[in-house]
Parts: sequence; C-alpha cells; structure tokens
Amino acid sequence: MKPRLVLDQDDVLAATHDYLADIVFNEFGTGLSRETFDTAPFQEILSADDQKRLYKKIHEVGFFRHIPVKPQAVEVVRALSQKYDIFVATAAMEFPNSFREKYDWLMQHFDFLGCKNFVFCGSKNIINADILIDDMAYNLEAFEGRGLLFDAVHNRQIEGHQRVMNWEEIEKLLN
Amino acid sequence: MKPRLVLDQDDVLAATHDYLADIVFNEFGTGLSRETFDTAPFQEILSADDQKRLYKKIHEVGFFRHIPVKPQAVEVVRALSQKYDIFVATAAMEFPNSFREKYDWLMQHFDFLGCKNFVFCGSKNIINADILIDDMAYNLEAFEGRGLLFDAVHNRQIEGHQRVMNWEEIEKLLN
Repeated sequence: MKPRLVLDQDDVLAATHDYLADIVFNEFGTGLSRETFDTAPFQEILSADDQKRLYKKIHEVGFFRHIPVKPQAVEVVRALSQKYDIFVATAAMEFPNSFREKYDWLMQHFDFLGCKNFVFCGSKNIINADILIDDMAYNLEAFEGRGLLFDAVHNRQIEGHQRVMNWEEIEKLLN
Repeated sequence: MKPRLVLDQDDVLAATHDYLADIVFNEFGTGLSRETFDTAPFQEILSADDQKRLYKKIHEVGFFRHIPVKPQAVEVVRALSQKYDIFVATAAMEFPNSFREKYDWLMQHFDFLGCKNFVFCGSKNIINADILIDDMAYNLEAFEGRGLLFDAVHNRQIEGHQRVMNWEEIEKLLN
C-alpha cells in the first residue's frame, strides 16, 4: 500500500494569498506597493475597513473558483501520485458557499486524483494519513502524522515545523 | 481526551431510505405496497426506468435538504456528545450539488456539534477516529477503528459487522 499524502488546498495547491494580494493592490487603493503584500500578512498592513472589505471578497460567489494554481503544483502532484495515495483536505466548513467552487477548482486542475480523494473538513485532526502539507501550523499540530509547513507570508515567523518553500522542493523531498 | 465517534449522515442520522420510499410510493405508481420498500432494496423491486427516475430525484435541487431526521437521533447524539468527540462524515463527493444542502441540514438538526466537526469526503478510510457508525459495509471495511453497521434494507444480508437497529440501541451500547 502506498503511503498517504494529504495536501491542503489554499496556499498549498492554490495561490490564494497571491490572488488576494493582486485584488487588494489593484482594487483597494491602499497606496502600498505590490511587494509589500509578499512580506507581511494582510492583518498587519491593512486598515480595519480594508480587512473587512477583504473578508467580503473572500465570501463573494466565484472567489474560490478563479484562484490560480501554485507554480509546478499540478506537475509535482501528478508525479508524486505514482508513489503516494494523494488526498486533498481543505477547511471548507468556514466557507459553506465555497463547497461547489472548491470542488470544481479541484476537478479542473487535479481531476487525476479522483473526487473521492477530496475531503472538505473543519479540523484536520480527523485526517488519517502519513504526511500532511499545509500552510497553517495549527493544522499540522492537530495532525498525527508527519507535517510539512508550506511557506507563506502568514507563517514566516513560525518555527518548529519542517518548512517547504515551493513545489520543486516538495518533489525533491518526497519523490 | 474523549474518544472520537464518527457518524454517517444518510440512513444513520437522516431517514434517507424512508424519504425515498415515500416518494416512490406516492409518485411513481408502481402498484407496490409501501411496506414492500421496507423489506427489499430499490434495485431489487423497481424497474430499470423507475431506478433511473429515482436516481434523478436524488440529484434534484433540494432533495437532501428535506430528509427527516431518524427517530431519536438528535436526542441520542446530544447525550453521546458529553462522552464522545462527535463528527459527521458523509460521502458528499458523489453528489457535488448536495454540499450546501447537506451542510444546511446538519446545521439545522445538529448545530450543537459545530460545523468544524462535519466532514464531506469520498472514501472513509481517510477518517481518523475510534468508532464509525455507517449503513454501508464498505465504509466500515475501509475504516481502521471499531465499526457499527446501522441496519438498513440494503444491508440486511450482510454479515460480519456488529449491527445496530436504531438510535435507542446505540445509546444503550455507547452511553
């Protein structure tokens, strides 16, 4: 039996932060440079009003449907699927309107995994697998197997987890 | 830490078969008595055309939203939640239009569990828990913990699993 590898969707497979940063930079008129959003989390640099506006954007119909895939994610996941039984587990319960969009996004980009390998959940402590790649440290802490922290602006200060910077690095590490 | 108890949604929490049987009896004009549907699975007693019609019904918008709760399910799950960490895991990936309806149904009847404890998945082998109650034997077989088979018309011939007939019995067994 292949070892089971579980992948988070947002900010692991999907370039969610970058997509949001583009929206804020192009539409919010904050006066901040685009690069600023690559170095600090939104909550540290946006006003309370802009944070509310961002929250609304995320909850808009269609938001999750149009997020670009992270560079090399499709190719590396496809390669790793020879060696691992791959699942995608995403915390969709916080965004009940996103279920169908997240499903359609996964079917568009990762249909080769099969929809039976998609999991929409709240806490990831319910996941039974060998390896979890996630950008949220609390998901890795809830998980019983080996955790890899996918680098993101909002986790750059966090220590204590093995960090992976991109999909090329994951391929070298796991393939 | 409380032991983790995972409950299937259809035909465990929700009276899905009974709801379908009422629809077939009232709308399909099969000539069969209502009791017939309590003793044999649809695929054994319905014509191929009626099976197709039933399949369409299940995929109609609103189908999952209006299924009644199984008798005593709410009361027993509430009582068991004192002793167990309870999750609901449902094979929603086969019905991508059902995500929101299944979520709304759970929030209506089992909101006390919290939406973070709802899991929409394909295979239940991804679930990390101590006990699973399910009406599908293949889900119990995929699961690594203790499995209880919730009695249903479509599993009555299956042996090799501890069978529970209703929620009163589950309360006596687990509380």
